[in-house]
Amino acid sequence: MKDLVSIRDVEKRWATSIFKLADELDSKPAPRKLAGKVLSTLFFEPSTRTRLSFHTAAARLGISLLDIESVGDSSIVKGESLVDTIKIVDGYADCIVIRHPLEGSARLAADLAQHPVINAGDGGNQHPTQTLIDLYTMNRLKKKISGLHVSLVGDLKYARTMHSLLYGLAMFGAEITLVSPKELQMEKAILEEVKEKFGTKVRISNEMNFRDCDVLYVCRIQKERFADPYEAVRLQQEFRITLESLKGAKDDLIILHPLPKVDEIAPEVDRSEKVRYFEQARYGVPVRMAILSDVMG
Amino acid sequence: MKDLVSIRDVEKRWATSIFKLADELDSKPAPRKLAGKVLSTLFFEPSTRTRLSFHTAAARLGISLLDIESVGDSSIVKGESLVDTIKIVDGYADCIVIRHPLEGSARLAADLAQHPVINAGDGGNQHPTQTLIDLYTMNRLKKKISGLHVSLVGDLKYARTMHSLLYGLAMFGAEITLVSPKELQMEKAILEEVKEKFGTKVRISNEMNFRDCDVLYVCRIQKERFADPYEAVRLQQEFRITLESLKGAKDDLIILHPLPKVDEIAPEVDRSEKVRYFEQARYGVPVRMAILSDVMG
Amino acid sequence: MKDLVSIRDVEKRWATSIFKLADELDSKPAPRKLAGKVLSTLFFEPSTRTRLSFHTAAARLGISLLDIESVGDSSIVKGESLVDTIKIVDGYADCIVIRHPLEGSARLAADLAQHPVINAGDGGNQHPTQTLIDLYTMNRLKKKISGLHVSLVGDLKYARTMHSLLYGLAMFGAEITLVSPKELQMEKAILEEVKEKFGTKVRISNEMNFRDCDVLYVCRIQKERFADPYEAVRLQQEFRITLESLKGAKDDLIILHPLPKVDEIAPEVDRSEKVRYFEQARYGVPVRMAILSDVMG
Repeated sequence: MKDLVSIRDVEKRWATSIFKLADELDSKPAPRKLAGKVLSTLFFEPSTRTRLSFHTAAARLGISLLDIESVGDSSIVKGESLVDTIKIVDGYADCIVIRHPLEGSARLAADLAQHPVINAGDGGNQHPTQTLIDLYTMNRLKKKISGLHVSLVGDLKYARTMHSLLYGLAMFGAEITLVSPKELQMEKAILEEVKEKFGTKVRISNEMNFRDCDVLYVCRIQKERFADPYEAVRLQQEFRITLESLKGAKDDLIILHPLPKVDEIAPEVDRSEKVRYFEQARYGVPVRMAILSDVMG
Repeated sequence: MKDLVSIRDVEKRWATSIFKLADELDSKPAPRKLAGKVLSTLFFEPSTRTRLSFHTAAARLGISLLDIESVGDSSIVKGESLVDTIKIVDGYADCIVIRHPLEGSARLAADLAQHPVINAGDGGNQHPTQTLIDLYTMNRLKKKISGLHVSLVGDLKYARTMHSLLYGLAMFGAEITLVSPKELQMEKAILEEVKEKFGTKVRISNEMNFRDCDVLYVCRIQKERFADPYEAVRLQQEFRITLESLKGAKDDLIILHPLPKVDEIAPEVDRSEKVRYFEQARYGVPVRMAILSDVMG
Repeated sequence: MKDLVSIRDVEKRWATSIFKLADELDSKPAPRKLAGKVLSTLFFEPSTRTRLSFHTAAARLGISLLDIESVGDSSIVKGESLVDTIKIVDGYADCIVIRHPLEGSARLAADLAQHPVINAGDGGNQHPTQTLIDLYTMNRLKKKISGLHVSLVGDLKYARTMHSLLYGLAMFGAEITLVSPKELQMEKAILEEVKEKFGTKVRISNEMNFRDCDVLYVCRIQKERFADPYEAVRLQQEFRITLESLKGAKDDLIILHPLPKVDEIAPEVDRSEKVRYFEQARYGVPVRMAILSDVMG
């Protein structure tokens, strides 16, 4: 693979090889064979966590960083077209990780650049490395994805993470339940796509019941999406993960979250052994190391 | 030692071994045995100098950097708890250098993190690596600390540096004189602590007379601490280091300062051979290299 | 050479050796013999492109970076003199790349620092590495500079790039034509200097005719220089590079630009094979690698 722009570019076989490579890279000191290579992280939107995770992955592999944040007064953007910026950075670096608010921007970059391009978020559209980390975490902690009962909880309408994750889970043959307020249900088109492509029948629910669930994947309900703030608070309360809502859950249920979390998970849940999201965040490093090794190697 | 949170964690023997290692690291090219390791500098307050000195130390050792400044719009902070941030960074890096305005924050980080934590300033509380650099500089330039006559001059009430330095000097057996305006005298509790722990009797003075002094350590009087700005200017004038105030001083007196300095030292003093604060700043690198080698090695 | 402050410090022989080294460094993986060295980029004005190009050059050579931007709230500047800042950074790094709005600031830094200093722009004065990149690009693409017909087009009065480039072209024996609005003609003193020093007779023109031209070097007309904005727009239109203005030009004419460009070159020209400015930007890396190797080696 030259570029990683969308989860739809990813084949199951390639993802599986990335997971295997990530396991290896996590278990022993990384080879320094990419020393002297340069990775550019080109971020037109702030994203500390994704950037730092890529920076760590690069550092572990001996790759040098060209860190470009164009949120401030960067002359690389002021009056300059995105096309020019990409062409110039492509002349400097051996690989570009790009985040840009515009949908399709990463695809444009991949078409323009001679070096590999990795999409780290193009607006409300795709963020494929996050999805690979989510799938890797489930596979690592549960030894499989196929047949796993996964519940996605929270804002399923606007959260980019959730759309790509649904696609990835369907590709790997998981049993999926979507739990959200009616106002924040996932768009039908996405459900139809996975049904057609993978034969996946997704269960829709608005009840906080996780009896049969193996993996609970939570994301935030964004209050700013609501005209009525009281309604937002009410839904947040109703779809919050508490010790109460986990009653009757399997002993080996694991709870994941893309982080940062705010108040969608009660603090007392943080101390539960079911919570694995800090481990999930940590796995961002070996998975991104594996991806960088693959596209830059 | 796993963590370096307070000068009170430091034993004389450990400090002495750090000084010896710093001497070695300053005299020949550093070994690259920490290459591939990752150091996170996690700064919730701006501090260019301390950050750069740690960055240089890491670079010399081949350590890669994860530089996190959370002063701006960093999503690692927005709405996220300090606890979550530390857990995540602990998953990425092999060591965390933290500066945070809250007293006790570094101790909290050390308790949460599995990797070593170095305190680079927690509010008005501790900044132990600065103290080790100050002690190293005296020891290197004067070949001893025990029995050395050291005068601390300036704001002894609010300047964090001075509290820790007094403790360190007492531990190493220096003869200490405190010179400050009455309004800015050091708190009694600190004087009692060093008397009880090390039997140190500190001399208090408000005269700018350095006849017997071997080391003159100056820090800034912060004008913003005064209700009456004219009073601040008057005290600044009175406790300013000038060529006049150095009359009668020993030939081999050395003048130190944590930097940056503003106007507490007259510009003509800068050209004196007594001035060693730029050398002191440079020693920040080998001392921090030694500390990083010790806790990360 | 210890420092690179002005193009006037550069001798033709040294520049030629830099070009040769840049060729070598661009054709194979760079040696890692500068690994462990530290380069400080000390920027008091924003300049993403120059900074990134130096960062890439350093990375390719295994040099670690100390990246200091003093535009924001950096305590390295707040109330501290430039002299103190330079002395401290000189204590940390093995070489300083400095950009500062004050003319003469780089010379001051070179005088103060024991390590080499490279000027990356001191106000409206000098930016010698850009000139070396421009000359390298012409020499690489045209196999010579002497006798080459070079037209400089745009704001020749205020654009720093153009003054240094004129000097460098004259030193290498190019045939030079200056094309600009009357209001933006190059100052007489510079023309007299190159005539006296190199015997160069420069042609002055205000016509967009590039029939005999081998190299067309374009720079931006800054609208903020004009009291009357309509006049600025009119001149911009008149001196804009379009496919029309290139009619009758040689087949192997090459078009260069220091970038970023805004609207001084029509978008359809971007697709012409004559356009080589993205290549020119890329050459910034090997040329700066060669300069760093020379002064830090």
